[in-house]
Amino acid sequence: MSKRYIGIDLGGTKIAAGIVDSQGRVLSKAESATLPDRPFEEVVRDMAGCARRAMSMAECGEERIEAIGIGIPGIAENQTGTVIFCTNLGWHNVPLRRELSQYINKPIYIDNDATVAGYAESVAGVSRGAKSSVFLTLGTGVGGGIVIDGKPWTGAHGVASELGHLTMVVDGIPCTCGKAGCVERYCSATALIRMGREAAEKHPDSLIADLSGGDPDKITGKLVIDCAREGDSAALKVFGEYTRNLAIAINNVISFLDPEIVVLGGGISHAGDFLLEAVRDRIPEFLMFKTMPYCRVELAVLGNQAGLIGAAMVTKSIAEEGEAYASDQDC
Amino acid sequence: MSKRYIGIDLGGTKIAAGIVDSQGRVLSKAESATLPDRPFEEVVRDMAGCARRAMSMAECGEERIEAIGIGIPGIAENQTGTVIFCTNLGWHNVPLRRELSQYINKPIYIDNDATVAGYAESVAGVSRGAKSSVFLTLGTGVGGGIVIDGKPWTGAHGVASELGHLTMVVDGIPCTCGKAGCVERYCSATALIRMGREAAEKHPDSLIADLSGGDPDKITGKLVIDCAREGDSAALKVFGEYTRNLAIAINNVISFLDPEIVVLGGGISHAGDFLLEAVRDRIPEFLMFKTMPYCRVELAVLGNQAGLIGAAMVTKSIAEEGEAYASDQDC
Repeated sequence: MSKRYIGIDLGGTKIAAGIVDSQGRVLSKAESATLPDRPFEEVVRDMAGCARRAMSMAECGEERIEAIGIGIPGIAENQTGTVIFCTNLGWHNVPLRRELSQYINKPIYIDNDATVAGYAESVAGVSRGAKSSVFLTLGTGVGGGIVIDGKPWTGAHGVASELGHLTMVVDGIPCTCGKAGCVERYCSATALIRMGREAAEKHPDSLIADLSGGDPDKITGKLVIDCAREGDSAALKVFGEYTRNLAIAINNVISFLDPEIVVLGGGISHAGDFLLEAVRDRIPEFLMFKTMPYCRVELAVLGNQAGLIGAAMVTKSIAEEGEAYASDQDC
Repeated sequence: MSKRYIGIDLGGTKIAAGIVDSQGRVLSKAESATLPDRPFEEVVRDMAGCARRAMSMAECGEERIEAIGIGIPGIAENQTGTVIFCTNLGWHNVPLRRELSQYINKPIYIDNDATVAGYAESVAGVSRGAKSSVFLTLGTGVGGGIVIDGKPWTGAHGVASELGHLTMVVDGIPCTCGKAGCVERYCSATALIRMGREAAEKHPDSLIADLSGGDPDKITGKLVIDCAREGDSAALKVFGEYTRNLAIAINNVISFLDPEIVVLGGGISHAGDFLLEAVRDRIPEFLMFKTMPYCRVELAVLGNQAGLIGAAMVTKSIAEEGEAYASDQDC
């Protein structure tokens, strides 16, 4: 009987758990609200509940489950199975593995959500076959996932690939992380919305101002991009500045790691080819020299399944390598 | 008989070639001026001459040489043995392997000088034993060398680890590469000198202004650092700003790759513990969260032997892996 993995995507808003086969196909999926203000024990109980529901939906008994992978919006330490830092959930040193293995006793591996989503794309998505890739999620924040030699790279201390928190403007816009000038402040959906609101205020006769009815809270990333598509000059200027920032951030990835492929995911990537073409067009401007060879830039294809698939696939790759990770009993 | 390697360090000012054993020990060394304004054929002829002299100094016949490694201040393509870009030498698409193998017919491998120097430190220097490391040369420019899983990482297209040309200030100071706001403009010796000159002009009664006799051309990186050591307030302010920039650049390395160790080399690193302690002190300010584990930061120990040793060691590691590279006859 072929092996099955549980993939869990723990987000600030919702928990998704699924049964994934060894090719990265999702056989079933169950969801639940995260409600992050609760004690972590309750959140973990609901993670286990989603996993159980997904198992019964796929008619998959516990004996077929090889391992559990969890993607979290933060940083984990797998030696101890602890979430050491997770801003959105307000988690600090949460013993996630110990807690979850009270419900399901299988090997559990925890990793950053962008890291596992990037790995998912490299196993079953747009970067399949690439030995090196960098994944950028363009959402409320900016997350990063690095694959090197076909394996997820999380660094020597598990704090790598925080590509949203590289400084791109020394003493720039203050960031939620406490630093200033982070990539996230210039390349996230939040940044695009901020720029859109500034433009609407400055240009009350723009399409952005018109469609939002003068209410800044109605200006979303999608609205700004839709207005740019319509040719509104204020929106086009904002979109031009945003894609320029993104091209600079991608050039930093090229100059640092030079991967085979850079993959764009997250909410903003739903703008599709309109975004992709604009970003691709701007990259050459920031290359070190004109004839320099560099990565392909593509859109993610796995959508919001990526976290779940990636969590399962990372735990599979680690189980197969026989690396040290364990259920709570072995700790 | 144990194997020998020729390491060649091709700089903008001088060529150094040496015979290196398989432990990374330099058995002999010969030097010559680069004189980069000459046709490249003449430079390559002198590279071969240095290699021959080093061979006879070490009483090492051609039959004992396994391979030749060359570190260049630029970007190479090893499939074709071509230097594709090398600003300091004004080289563009120079067939270095073909040219050199007219003189010595051995396998030839070409790589970036900071990459090979970083690898040298990881084989025989301060980062020995580390599986992942990042080397930063703080000289006229800023170079970078990345080691991942014990091997030099040059990227999917050979253009990785150009850490001096990551953007740290969007629309910042114009860079010699044609971009603006590159790390090199804030963290190189050139940057320190610029800041020192500005301070001397602004503070004519500072020690910097005094020791340079009012002549900006006499202000070197060493002079600025010496004045800071003496407690001159203008120099301390410059040094503080410089080490802050460096701490931000190192934090970008941490957030991207999270290596075991970051190694500082190049001219500025000769300031020793005075520099090292200042940089180490400033890093925590830019971490994503206070309790975050991160790399050691150390000074390089191999000095100007690093390029030569690293070029030899990179070619050794590639020869041992049996990867595809070849003398001209095989191309």
